[in-house]
Amino acid sequence: MPNPYPANSVGQVAPEVYQFDEPLELSCGRTLNQYELVVETYGQLNSDKSNAVLICHALSGHHHAAGYHAPGDTKPGWWDHYIGPGKAIDTDHFFVVALNNLGGCHGSTGPRSNNPDTGKIWGKGFPPLRVRDWVSSQARLADHLGIDCWAAVVGGSLGGMNAMRWALEYPDRVRHCVVIASAMKLSAQNIAFNEIARRAIKSDREYHDGEFLEHDTIPRDGLALARMIGHVTYLSDELMGVRFGRELRSGTFQPGLEAPVEFQVESYLRHQGDRFAQEFDANTYLLMTKILDYFDLAREYGDDPVQAFAHATCHFLVISFSSDWRFSPARSREIVDALIAANRDVSYATIESNMGHDAFLLPNDRYERVFRAYMMRVAQDTQAPAARSAQR
Amino acid sequence: MPNPYPANSVGQVAPEVYQFDEPLELSCGRTLNQYELVVETYGQLNSDKSNAVLICHALSGHHHAAGYHAPGDTKPGWWDHYIGPGKAIDTDHFFVVALNNLGGCHGSTGPRSNNPDTGKIWGKGFPPLRVRDWVSSQARLADHLGIDCWAAVVGGSLGGMNAMRWALEYPDRVRHCVVIASAMKLSAQNIAFNEIARRAIKSDREYHDGEFLEHDTIPRDGLALARMIGHVTYLSDELMGVRFGRELRSGTFQPGLEAPVEFQVESYLRHQGDRFAQEFDANTYLLMTKILDYFDLAREYGDDPVQAFAHATCHFLVISFSSDWRFSPARSREIVDALIAANRDVSYATIESNMGHDAFLLPNDRYERVFRAYMMRVAQDTQAPAARSAQR
Repeated sequence: MPNPYPANSVGQVAPEVYQFDEPLELSCGRTLNQYELVVETYGQLNSDKSNAVLICHALSGHHHAAGYHAPGDTKPGWWDHYIGPGKAIDTDHFFVVALNNLGGCHGSTGPRSNNPDTGKIWGKGFPPLRVRDWVSSQARLADHLGIDCWAAVVGGSLGGMNAMRWALEYPDRVRHCVVIASAMKLSAQNIAFNEIARRAIKSDREYHDGEFLEHDTIPRDGLALARMIGHVTYLSDELMGVRFGRELRSGTFQPGLEAPVEFQVESYLRHQGDRFAQEFDANTYLLMTKILDYFDLAREYGDDPVQAFAHATCHFLVISFSSDWRFSPARSREIVDALIAANRDVSYATIESNMGHDAFLLPNDRYERVFRAYMMRVAQDTQAPAARSAQR
Repeated sequence: MPNPYPANSVGQVAPEVYQFDEPLELSCGRTLNQYELVVETYGQLNSDKSNAVLICHALSGHHHAAGYHAPGDTKPGWWDHYIGPGKAIDTDHFFVVALNNLGGCHGSTGPRSNNPDTGKIWGKGFPPLRVRDWVSSQARLADHLGIDCWAAVVGGSLGGMNAMRWALEYPDRVRHCVVIASAMKLSAQNIAFNEIARRAIKSDREYHDGEFLEHDTIPRDGLALARMIGHVTYLSDELMGVRFGRELRSGTFQPGLEAPVEFQVESYLRHQGDRFAQEFDANTYLLMTKILDYFDLAREYGDDPVQAFAHATCHFLVISFSSDWRFSPARSREIVDALIAANRDVSYATIESNMGHDAFLLPNDRYERVFRAYMMRVAQDTQAPAARSAQR
């Protein structure tokens, strides 16, 4: 049978569910007695298990980062542009691990799961999480896979925060940390947009104070609004101008006619919002945006990122995008400045792009080259562990 | 009795309602058989009626632009910083006219008014308006006041669009046009934010397809959300950082505690949204944002702003603010470039400010000086009509 997938694709993949029965103490003080993580892996783990790369997803991401679930699939995983044979994260070199984070709604234990203690759906009662709880659960996953040390932990946006937290919490288990379109903490404006999105969900009458599944409904309008707000902030003004401008989808401006006018951009946004509302869980959205708001890399290091990064030992690659106003290049430079002041090894690139925050997901030649070049260095470290030790 | 108001205030003012009984043909093809406009005036109209300045308000503005309604008032009119004796728009020189636009919810005929043809509230049935309809109704107001030609038509944001439309529609009736923090048309991003705000209102179940007043309710949550979205976009990221940062209003990040954290910025936005929802009419909000979206200065001039401004004969002052990302300086420079190409007289200033779009309402020394210097020139024209004619 001929290969129905592109040659540089990881091809057909299948998620696996791992069950963890050892209780996980959470930062909020509560304990998850058991939990499941849904995971995809691409490439082969080498004999000394030194070539594993962890992919940390962003707000609405999940475990399906590359490849296809079935021959008919038109849409590959969310980071398929950058994961595959010959791609930046080259699956000919690396064993790539992608998971849906705890609290997610794509198969890992989260608000949509059953609480084994009550037999009921967790819903809004799911414990509040921090990024560090993801790191703890991901460390258990690494243990399970026999991975003592990640060749690299890689993430964009919220995933970049996850990657940085790994570097601080388990310095001996991360050799490289790749932080893309991220920040050490959100700005007030970012928190404001998240709060508006949360309020949109909560003020939808179908939200039922978080117990919408028990009422056999979902807060569709609220979730769609939340997504629309997010989506506008992930794009740049310029890109929206190029893509939609003031083109009409229907109606006319002809004087004397009262035909309602709809701009292309309105129809596009509505479509995005409605599609998201069908797929995503409202309680997960509330949970994830709070995790994003609460993340503050240096909080317990005297609010000093230099002190924080003094705990890291890995090498860093930091990438930002010129038109990203949600996680602007200035936020990435703060990371880089702190790393330099902490005497850490860091490479940094700002990529010219008009794609806004979404640029980290999209094809971009310069981004791809910088990313690939760095990951080749990571692969060389992997192939020559003796040389690597000598460098330290 | 001592004057209870600041010396540079216009003091106590009272709105007046003007009724217009001559039918007004609207750009949608429908006709308003009669309408009322609520108006405030400050200063004295001079004998040759050459010193009148029209103030055009923005999205959520109204007729109360300066002074106080009663001695106990803690809050003066919305542009009190710039209208008053000795201020940029100096009421010792000018007769200032401020009105609530047609379609508004502060006393002029709008969705909250009774439709005399049906005896019922207009509600969502109020005719869709364009900026040019405001200009027509304002021209009737000028006729009523005996003002043949405005010394200046002045407006910020949507009000700036209104002022520019005056300059094109009635070139003989405008000597100076002051356009602050405005644009010749909205960008796709701007339209997107407006559409999200509209969707927030319409998906509130209390909206009742626009007939909320008949149901004795208002779409409070939707309106609050709409305002919150607008408000974030009127402020700059920097200002929000300075004002709120990541300061907490309640809760704690202490590990092991599940106390819900609320950031200052969240509480502030909620307060702004809730207050607005108590005052503003949802149908007016929908109407006004559509007027904003549909405005396109050059649409009927072959999409060529240079052709459009060829119809203007007045002098222009254009002002923008460095941190305004909703109506950025680039949008103002487009206006200025078109005016220069059309061989019009234009002065332009970008004011350094971290206040975002809201800067046009707020005290700023440099803005005040530029604005005042220009208005002194307008006043000189007014005092020497013979000299003015000679300049033309």
